Amino acid sequence: MTLRYLTGGESHGRLLLGIVEGIPSGLPLTAEAINTDLARRQKGYGRGGRMRIEKDQAEIVAGVRHGKTLGGPIGLIIQNKDWENWQQVMSVSPEEEVSEKRVVTKPRPGHADLVGAIKYGHQDIRNVLEKASARETAIRVAVGAVAKQLLGEFGIKVISHVVEIGGVRASGQSTDPDTIVRQAEASEVRCADPQATGQMVARIKEAKLKGDTLGGVFEVVVTQPPIGLGSYSQWDRRLNARLAMALMSIQAIKGVEIGLGFEVARRFGSEVHDEIFYTRTRLKGQKKEGITGFYRKTNNAGGIEGGVTNGQDIVLRAAMKPIATLYSPLKSVDILTKEAFEATVERSDVCSVPAAGVVGEAVVAFEIAAEMIHKFGGDSLTEMKRNYEAYLETVKNF
Amino acid sequence: MTLRYLTGGESHGRLLLGIVEGIPSGLPLTAEAINTDLARRQKGYGRGGRMRIEKDQAEIVAGVRHGKTLGGPIGLIIQNKDWENWQQVMSVSPEEEVSEKRVVTKPRPGHADLVGAIKYGHQDIRNVLEKASARETAIRVAVGAVAKQLLGEFGIKVISHVVEIGGVRASGQSTDPDTIVRQAEASEVRCADPQATGQMVARIKEAKLKGDTLGGVFEVVVTQPPIGLGSYSQWDRRLNARLAMALMSIQAIKGVEIGLGFEVARRFGSEVHDEIFYTRTRLKGQKKEGITGFYRKTNNAGGIEGGVTNGQDIVLRAAMKPIATLYSPLKSVDILTKEAFEATVERSDVCSVPAAGVVGEAVVAFEIAAEMIHKFGGDSLTEMKRNYEAYLETVKNF
Amino acid sequence: MTLRYLTGGESHGRLLLGIVEGIPSGLPLTAEAINTDLARRQKGYGRGGRMRIEKDQAEIVAGVRHGKTLGGPIGLIIQNKDWENWQQVMSVSPEEEVSEKRVVTKPRPGHADLVGAIKYGHQDIRNVLEKASARETAIRVAVGAVAKQLLGEFGIKVISHVVEIGGVRASGQSTDPDTIVRQAEASEVRCADPQATGQMVARIKEAKLKGDTLGGVFEVVVTQPPIGLGSYSQWDRRLNARLAMALMSIQAIKGVEIGLGFEVARRFGSEVHDEIFYTRTRLKGQKKEGITGFYRKTNNAGGIEGGVTNGQDIVLRAAMKPIATLYSPLKSVDILTKEAFEATVERSDVCSVPAAGVVGEAVVAFEIAAEMIHKFGGDSLTEMKRNYEAYLETVKNF
Amino acid sequence: MTLRYLTGGESHGRLLLGIVEGIPSGLPLTAEAINTDLARRQKGYGRGGRMRIEKDQAEIVAGVRHGKTLGGPIGLIIQNKDWENWQQVMSVSPEEEVSEKRVVTKPRPGHADLVGAIKYGHQDIRNVLEKASARETAIRVAVGAVAKQLLGEFGIKVISHVVEIGGVRASGQSTDPDTIVRQAEASEVRCADPQATGQMVARIKEAKLKGDTLGGVFEVVVTQPPIGLGSYSQWDRRLNARLAMALMSIQAIKGVEIGLGFEVARRFGSEVHDEIFYTRTRLKGQKKEGITGFYRKTNNAGGIEGGVTNGQDIVLRAAMKPIATLYSPLKSVDILTKEAFEATVERSDVCSVPAAGVVGEAVVAFEIAAEMIHKFGGDSLTEMKRNYEAYLETVKNF
Repeated sequence: MTLRYLTGGESHGRLLLGIVEGIPSGLPLTAEAINTDLARRQKGYGRGGRMRIEKDQAEIVAGVRHGKTLGGPIGLIIQNKDWENWQQVMSVSPEEEVSEKRVVTKPRPGHADLVGAIKYGHQDIRNVLEKASARETAIRVAVGAVAKQLLGEFGIKVISHVVEIGGVRASGQSTDPDTIVRQAEASEVRCADPQATGQMVARIKEAKLKGDTLGGVFEVVVTQPPIGLGSYSQWDRRLNARLAMALMSIQAIKGVEIGLGFEVARRFGSEVHDEIFYTRTRLKGQKKEGITGFYRKTNNAGGIEGGVTNGQDIVLRAAMKPIATLYSPLKSVDILTKEAFEATVERSDVCSVPAAGVVGEAVVAFEIAAEMIHKFGGDSLTEMKRNYEAYLETVKNF
Repeated sequence: MTLRYLTGGESHGRLLLGIVEGIPSGLPLTAEAINTDLARRQKGYGRGGRMRIEKDQAEIVAGVRHGKTLGGPIGLIIQNKDWENWQQVMSVSPEEEVSEKRVVTKPRPGHADLVGAIKYGHQDIRNVLEKASARETAIRVAVGAVAKQLLGEFGIKVISHVVEIGGVRASGQSTDPDTIVRQAEASEVRCADPQATGQMVARIKEAKLKGDTLGGVFEVVVTQPPIGLGSYSQWDRRLNARLAMALMSIQAIKGVEIGLGFEVARRFGSEVHDEIFYTRTRLKGQKKEGITGFYRKTNNAGGIEGGVTNGQDIVLRAAMKPIATLYSPLKSVDILTKEAFEATVERSDVCSVPAAGVVGEAVVAFEIAAEMIHKFGGDSLTEMKRNYEAYLETVKNF
Repeated sequence: MTLRYLTGGESHGRLLLGIVEGIPSGLPLTAEAINTDLARRQKGYGRGGRMRIEKDQAEIVAGVRHGKTLGGPIGLIIQNKDWENWQQVMSVSPEEEVSEKRVVTKPRPGHADLVGAIKYGHQDIRNVLEKASARETAIRVAVGAVAKQLLGEFGIKVISHVVEIGGVRASGQSTDPDTIVRQAEASEVRCADPQATGQMVARIKEAKLKGDTLGGVFEVVVTQPPIGLGSYSQWDRRLNARLAMALMSIQAIKGVEIGLGFEVARRFGSEVHDEIFYTRTRLKGQKKEGITGFYRKTNNAGGIEGGVTNGQDIVLRAAMKPIATLYSPLKSVDILTKEAFEATVERSDVCSVPAAGVVGEAVVAFEIAAEMIHKFGGDSLTEMKRNYEAYLETVKNF
Repeated sequence: MTLRYLTGGESHGRLLLGIVEGIPSGLPLTAEAINTDLARRQKGYGRGGRMRIEKDQAEIVAGVRHGKTLGGPIGLIIQNKDWENWQQVMSVSPEEEVSEKRVVTKPRPGHADLVGAIKYGHQDIRNVLEKASARETAIRVAVGAVAKQLLGEFGIKVISHVVEIGGVRASGQSTDPDTIVRQAEASEVRCADPQATGQMVARIKEAKLKGDTLGGVFEVVVTQPPIGLGSYSQWDRRLNARLAMALMSIQAIKGVEIGLGFEVARRFGSEVHDEIFYTRTRLKGQKKEGITGFYRKTNNAGGIEGGVTNGQDIVLRAAMKPIATLYSPLKSVDILTKEAFEATVERSDVCSVPAAGVVGEAVVAFEIAAEMIHKFGGDSLTEMKRNYEAYLETVKNF
């Protein structure tokens, strides 16, 4: 594997940690760049209390010296700022006892609570929820920020915006990534359509009043990837497959699509495939040096044909289910007493689709970075760039 | 890795081959079981000529003796029955020359043709299309049939049916897997809704008349998996993520969803999460021995919560784009002369969604088998079953 | 992969960290068990100053609650106790500048210094040596201690002792693991032969006087593994191959052998292969329940035949080169000025073979644990043990 | 993974097959190049009957067209020329029955026979020995020949020669690879020391008369690898570790060493580490363009420091145990009757160390090729070479 990572840490544990292996040397990297994304992950209309308490801060604890990567594994840590209130309940040490009252025996529908308890043989559901929790996405955002930093060196951006919440769909938004970013970041729900933003906020308010929650759809766009990432050589090298895995691995995601996505099931072939054109002159708006004269007027494929990037922006969407912890009661059964109860919470997020989009950026950026390293090789950023530039030159002349 | 496979072979090459590593010993396996699925892959209204010429036959060339697996790698081969007509064009040997007239320089939109040529530096697009072709799915169906055979020993079936073609959706079909199978296999388009079948066939005829093609959506169902496959421990162990990757790796797939899928974006949380119930008496229709008393009345989650199976059927859907080779012309550009041309074919499939469903079964079965082997271990089927039965007993008593 | 780990951290960085993924739930685990091995790694006659300054302490920061594993990834940290003296030189932040005087430009022969600088494009060799340093083995010992803890639940121990230093060979030591452990731990050089211990210490003193260093050979023994770990099914599943990789991955190791090792090149076949015997009565000294009636009177194979454990102790040896940082000068060339210089240090270890043996235990334990998890599956220790016991019962009756 | 392979097939099965994934496009490849190595694997004084019957011929069945690789997986097959005599005994089909007389129940010491039967639950030991057999190395030699072909494009050769058989050691042989190759290939036992060759042959004759077998040691040399393959970044990326795994995965190998190997345990540090020198003028005998001015006068490290190539030849040795099937009886026990018997064969090889050296070349070549692809990336040979040349240029100027 050219690039890989592992993460660890419980939701209310002492810290989250991650190790990223395979980043080339010489990449400028600071905690600030990571913290920007961590902050973006914590924003969004519809978030409950916890997001306000903790302001996540990543610390780079390995792999970087004087602001540049060394070529070795990068160690990342996010301390739990509320640890002192949790250190007894979450103590690593065997001495600490959990009072019976704090043992969690009531599984919440829509969570891993029940299946995790059965799978791992836990009597205390806290042993499940602490790991299965979406809190883990904080460290994945940190990992993804490292990948983004690398991609940035090649002029590749990974952005996201919300396109649907609770049935309200954005429409008419720009296809220009910079415009999308500007509008999405200005929106309370990270939606690039200002009108839809208002409707989405209203919908979230409505859900909150009902004691209910909402899901939605976010879109991730990878701008200006080079032609030729991924491969049809073997099933597990198809880039769309890897991206689908990455997005579906985010907590609460139930659907993933690329380009037209499910819409392809409703159209004729002649309305789907992106025709191929050619020009010898530089295309307007085409920023990347060395790009080939071949181009498309549509991007229904979402940037990938045959498992391989075709040079257009990669466009992915993921559907997130409503938060599974809600005010209005859901029926469940105590695992100890086997008695029915109604699962309910006093405080929770109503909608976390805007945040999920930031996580989506992270996992997508990681896969693209992995493919970049795979294709262009190199142990240092200098070497990788040299190989990249030489490739672009041949693509230009193809 | 507990279970893995590699495939090789070109569309018109001498043969396709596959190696499956990690199947336990003692599993009954014959070519017949594999050939049944290969035949299913070749059927379906809307298929063109090639499917009729060749009747794929798998040969087991390694890993099986006297009808049972040995515990070593399983070798699979599917000979190209039309090889004699292709052996010059596809010759491995350097002596054979391709006449200039047979060199393919015209990339088809929607295929890997152009990106493959640029990525791998090919001047003859045949060097791309031969590998990127969906012909490769034949050997993947063979690999999947081995996985299905293993799952069958545990009472797990992997089935599929078509739920949408060209905008025509099936509705009102049974949720009983046996019924679905019976009706789907009786349908020309592998659709379990007889009324929709008629409309789908009509839609395909319409497309054919227009010289156009159609995509659609198929559903794959894994019946009665045990609770506890997959894990939330690490992002790449979430079973839904692995399944999404597997389905998205099939040629022409542009979207994947599980359970309610994209519909979750339109509902309130209270309408999405599957409430938890409990009974001490065996549930009606519950076939599996040892199942826990916990149960659900809905399956919106599609059988997976927190990346882990919850004991309900796993329900997945994948969207396939229309076939990219069509009669009606698509604009493209010759890679050699850089002149525009109109890509068109004289004979092609109109719709291959029914076949894709069979491929979907294969790739899903492989992932489920891998997880079964991961969780239950064992080098022989006997050992694996023993571990499985003991686990079911504890689940029953949870 | 059933069990995997990544490590990070620089020699004089803020901390070392590790993540272990795949350990079953319910395993008792405390920092104390890990710290015992960390302390053993720091002992041994012939160690220089640094080992005395720092007393490594592992902290479990993830994956364990109230003394038991949760089934998720285990996070480990070893803080650098001398960090305050290094935080400027090793600062992550770009603001800190290294004064020119502190830039390292003199590569030491026998280290990664020169090749690392060329590979990763570093001008400051500190960027190489901080990662390539054997300091990293501290976190590997911590990872291995987790694996040992798991193996201990199955009555499997992984021990080590030194069998050669600077040409002085141990002889006549017991083959009983408990005796070896007792004697080795009582020896200043972790040698189970008291007479050789004295000679080895003398040899180290001699080297020290000469300003030189010494290497040696340590042996790792895995006691009472079950029959059937590893496989001949595929090259990368052979347990001896994995063990060789693990041992050779330790800094300064130049040779690995199993059982008779290189001695097999000098004997007739009739003197090498372990004949097979059978008894229906329990063998004396045979501690493991459920062991088969088949047994051997010799263990020339070192416990592995055909890549698979045969139930006898696994016996491995690894050769470590002398420490590459020595008082007596080695010729080298400055990478900046290209001027020749003589590499020399004022203070260094003379011999670290005893410590390397502890690292050897760790990496071997990890591979055995991985194989145990692969073969016996299970998400919890309870489940894994149940599968294990059931297997032993069938082995007994084979 | 940048380069990977799987193999399948039983010793007397219909065929052996292999799939190599990750070879760049545009590499010239013919069956002839592979068959040369297959023939070399079958030679050597001391081989018994089977080697004379079958002349292995590899067929490339996928991934190559008109003499060049396509960038997709390469499929390799070696037909069993004696298949007609085995097709009943080794039939895949369940109809064929093995007469009780042909069931193998007598495990041979030194083989996987007994452990394989227990592990996989086989009553017929043929189900074990067919897969565990060193016959499988034929397809690995074919896989390695593909890797060698790639390395050859970069001026890297992987050669081997026998340095010890039955205690007779070669000495005084050249260190020049070309001379070694010429002399080894001229020797009946692939030994580059003509005098030792005679003694080795005599020793084999002696063993044969005694009805015994002999092992030995072979050396593999990788000539002129670039500086910088492998990494100290993570334990499993150290090139020496990967090479040790590869060599130890060959049937009957019990020890692996690099450079001085176990000899390092007997020397002072000052006698081990390769001092560093520098010259601005091209060194005599230095064939590779672009090599750095840094050089060594010794190669005790065997070409790898800190897990990374240092630009000198990589020198590895592996110890092979004597063949475990011998004329002189070894005691064993029938697995069915539990009765003792004496294992003996009528016809067997006496020594296969010369052949094992060829297998050693193959597995080493594979790992080096994998690292080359990892470091230099690229999808086509052209791209890989371009990246390689640009890197050599920077190394030259370091």
